[in-house]
Amino acid sequence: MYVRNCWYVAAWDHELKVGELISRTLINEPVALYRAQDGAIVGLADRCCHRLAPLSLGRIEGDDLRCMYHGLKFNRSGACIEIPGQDMIPATACVKSYPAVSRHSWIWVWMGDPARADEALIPPAVGFEDPNWTLRSGHMDYDANYLLINDNLTDFTHLSYVHANSFGASEVFARTRPNIERLDRGVRIWRWVVDGFRDAKAAPHRRAEGDNWQTYDYLAPGILLMHTAVLPTGSAERFGHKSPDLSQVEVLSDNFTSQAVTPMTDHTSRYFFSWGPRAAESSDAMAEAMLAVANLAFSEDKAMIEAQQKMVDANPGVKPVLTSADVGPMLMRSVIERMIAAEAAPGAALPAAASAA
Amino acid sequence: MYVRNCWYVAAWDHELKVGELISRTLINEPVALYRAQDGAIVGLADRCCHRLAPLSLGRIEGDDLRCMYHGLKFNRSGACIEIPGQDMIPATACVKSYPAVSRHSWIWVWMGDPARADEALIPPAVGFEDPNWTLRSGHMDYDANYLLINDNLTDFTHLSYVHANSFGASEVFARTRPNIERLDRGVRIWRWVVDGFRDAKAAPHRRAEGDNWQTYDYLAPGILLMHTAVLPTGSAERFGHKSPDLSQVEVLSDNFTSQAVTPMTDHTSRYFFSWGPRAAESSDAMAEAMLAVANLAFSEDKAMIEAQQKMVDANPGVKPVLTSADVGPMLMRSVIERMIAAEAAPGAALPAAASAA
Amino acid sequence: MYVRNCWYVAAWDHELKVGELISRTLINEPVALYRAQDGAIVGLADRCCHRLAPLSLGRIEGDDLRCMYHGLKFNRSGACIEIPGQDMIPATACVKSYPAVSRHSWIWVWMGDPARADEALIPPAVGFEDPNWTLRSGHMDYDANYLLINDNLTDFTHLSYVHANSFGASEVFARTRPNIERLDRGVRIWRWVVDGFRDAKAAPHRRAEGDNWQTYDYLAPGILLMHTAVLPTGSAERFGHKSPDLSQVEVLSDNFTSQAVTPMTDHTSRYFFSWGPRAAESSDAMAEAMLAVANLAFSEDKAMIEAQQKMVDANPGVKPVLTSADVGPMLMRSVIERMIAAEAAPGAALPAAASAA
Repeated sequence: MYVRNCWYVAAWDHELKVGELISRTLINEPVALYRAQDGAIVGLADRCCHRLAPLSLGRIEGDDLRCMYHGLKFNRSGACIEIPGQDMIPATACVKSYPAVSRHSWIWVWMGDPARADEALIPPAVGFEDPNWTLRSGHMDYDANYLLINDNLTDFTHLSYVHANSFGASEVFARTRPNIERLDRGVRIWRWVVDGFRDAKAAPHRRAEGDNWQTYDYLAPGILLMHTAVLPTGSAERFGHKSPDLSQVEVLSDNFTSQAVTPMTDHTSRYFFSWGPRAAESSDAMAEAMLAVANLAFSEDKAMIEAQQKMVDANPGVKPVLTSADVGPMLMRSVIERMIAAEAAPGAALPAAASAA
Repeated sequence: MYVRNCWYVAAWDHELKVGELISRTLINEPVALYRAQDGAIVGLADRCCHRLAPLSLGRIEGDDLRCMYHGLKFNRSGACIEIPGQDMIPATACVKSYPAVSRHSWIWVWMGDPARADEALIPPAVGFEDPNWTLRSGHMDYDANYLLINDNLTDFTHLSYVHANSFGASEVFARTRPNIERLDRGVRIWRWVVDGFRDAKAAPHRRAEGDNWQTYDYLAPGILLMHTAVLPTGSAERFGHKSPDLSQVEVLSDNFTSQAVTPMTDHTSRYFFSWGPRAAESSDAMAEAMLAVANLAFSEDKAMIEAQQKMVDANPGVKPVLTSADVGPMLMRSVIERMIAAEAAPGAALPAAASAA
Repeated sequence: MYVRNCWYVAAWDHELKVGELISRTLINEPVALYRAQDGAIVGLADRCCHRLAPLSLGRIEGDDLRCMYHGLKFNRSGACIEIPGQDMIPATACVKSYPAVSRHSWIWVWMGDPARADEALIPPAVGFEDPNWTLRSGHMDYDANYLLINDNLTDFTHLSYVHANSFGASEVFARTRPNIERLDRGVRIWRWVVDGFRDAKAAPHRRAEGDNWQTYDYLAPGILLMHTAVLPTGSAERFGHKSPDLSQVEVLSDNFTSQAVTPMTDHTSRYFFSWGPRAAESSDAMAEAMLAVANLAFSEDKAMIEAQQKMVDANPGVKPVLTSADVGPMLMRSVIERMIAAEAAPGAALPAAASAA
């Protein structure tokens, strides 16, 4: 079961070149994507209505797409506009069209009711065009259900164990619980990390001295938007361990990461991510160093989560024994479950859009 | 569901060397094949009745076959004639024997009632021994059900799209429907191609000038026998766009192809083919050039059909939206369905044999 | 269905190094294994109770094991003794602990009721520490259910066919039936081989002259313990073709093999084996030559049994036609079935331990 009335990240914008077709499977549905001549993104079910051949093996003709098995041609709305050798085109000759948009360097596809596709619901990720940040990016495929990755990203306890040698969190980090707030379409998680990185190997983007302030929103279906700032030692206490007013304090350094977890099938997911420091002199080198660490850390997650998925699959009846670290994952799962339930209730309003964390 | 009372192509004749065993899976049944000393082909269920070890791992002893797990020995009729260390051989100790024949360079196996195996029902394919044609051959394995390949071979509309760069059909070809006739065990499809190849890259076996006359029989389970002739421009009109009398016209060039689609399992098929021009001086080079084009084209088919099969598998409930190009495939499927239904009716006569196209 | 109240060979003792974790799947259950500081073997379910991550990806801390996903720590009994960031540890936070013992160079794991784990039930295999034998060892993985391997090892008829070129049995061997006795936890199989190896290529451990005396116990779930001795020609007759008193006869040469067939899953098995001659000058070279032949022979078994498994899987309804050679396999299967049935009867006594063959 998936939320349908939301935007899924299908690809990096730069993966979809003009005149080329790509195919991406989202929540078990194959979608063919291409750019129309006005630059708009076209998303069509990647399955010809005639004989079910993939349209992504087809040919773009202007704004239209021709199936290259028997030549049926579809317009960007998915209507068949030509059947070679036949004058009459039956009304049933059409393929599903998916609303699709390029925004914040990602291509987003709306998998639900097209009439409800609202670009205001696209999460405020940070794209390469944003002048404030110097970003590097990547993606990674998982042999795992996206919910296990969501669980991972809404409970950073694992940093002290999975990432002891990459992000460099000490065990103090795991013993400290973050603050968690429910949002309409997700959760907000924030914490001060005063001691959490003190004893650990310093990651390149982390100052040896200072209090770390870390806040992120995690939005359905699986969009993580996180801001981390290193503030002078004593800042956590100065702000009463609450949310700081960053205009009232010297920010020693800060960085931003946008991440997206996209269910491809029930058993596979694609994980997109960018990360980088505030734009400044020499931030290119810093961004590259940060992405190198992130790539290492995300490989550690992937190894653990894929192993976990195998155990889950092999033990279908076994329920997890939850701990107090599971508040984030459980809250996020409940947000998703409520959204799915709401979609089953006809006429219900969609949850409101997220604002920047 | 498969037609059982018909001959399936199991292998090229040259694949079965004297003294060697091969194993071929036909309609989900493994068959061990070897040659008896009189040259006859022996086909036995490739599964010892004792412990189900494959007999194709066995040893040919004269005309008999010994299982090399525990030594049971079977004669060419499948009766067990020796159990080492045991005098009494139970009547249940036997394996199924399949009628098998080498004809037209192929080894044919009858998967149905042995009492009804009739060599007159072997389709009149053209083998290497035929002095009229200079043939080259090959085979290819599909991860697809054979019916999807049958569909492909009974609707040449796809030539204009799948094979635009190999066989070189123009889009005019796709817009022209062939004539289709029902046969007892298949369909006959013929057409004049007056403009169909005019604008396309010339395939090596095709004359730039002239009217193409193309006729083929497609016989259950999946045997294609096609004759193509290039006749002087105007021939189509001269013969009223009907079947020409080739003795009354100068044949500029002609060629013949025999093809066989064999279901190995529900999900896999083997595709055998030979092709070549009329035997003449320098026809070897022409045959090789033709096979090179055919190999390229058949790889194009394979890529499309295997992609189609994946979509079909992933969307079990989705029905094709048929077009007027589907008359051939639908008729061929109905022939096969009727043959299967007829086999369920005890005592019904088999459909009559095909004559040459 | 598996016997649970018995010891399964999980690994060679030398596979489990101090400070390292290994994971082995036994009868479909993943088990993490390590050595405690006192040298005892710890076996824990390889699946954290929290989020089902594999504990074999964890970290040994003293005698305890920490899950390296979110940091839960377990003692050697499987009780959780730490949840980072949480004081209260619920009673449900524990993983299954399996009795595990190193004995005779193998690590044995008891998969049944821990209260009934009785080291006296460990079969009397011969380990490397035994001064009487010079052993070499190996193991091999099968894509086959363990019962098919048990069948193979309780019916040596196959030696004349599968191993004609390795162990070198003649067809006389296949035509001679061994003596078979039922044991509490298995079967005892013995035979004189007077002519069985006469015409075959001599294996390096076999004397060209002499009567072979061969006896082995095959114990649940799949432990083979075999003693082979070459005695002077005429010994079989001298002892009336019964069990010889080896103290009353000159043993020309003898050797011992211990073998274990462990079900990993329903479809996969691991086969452990050691073999070697009586310890003496130059027995190292002899042991190596014997193992080289055994490795060849066991590869022959593996090829045959995996092919057999595929046929069994593809033909679920087909029953074997049994021969008089199947007494051993059938008796061994019935022993296992009775043990499984007995486990379902609460309070029933376990079958008695085996003594040396």
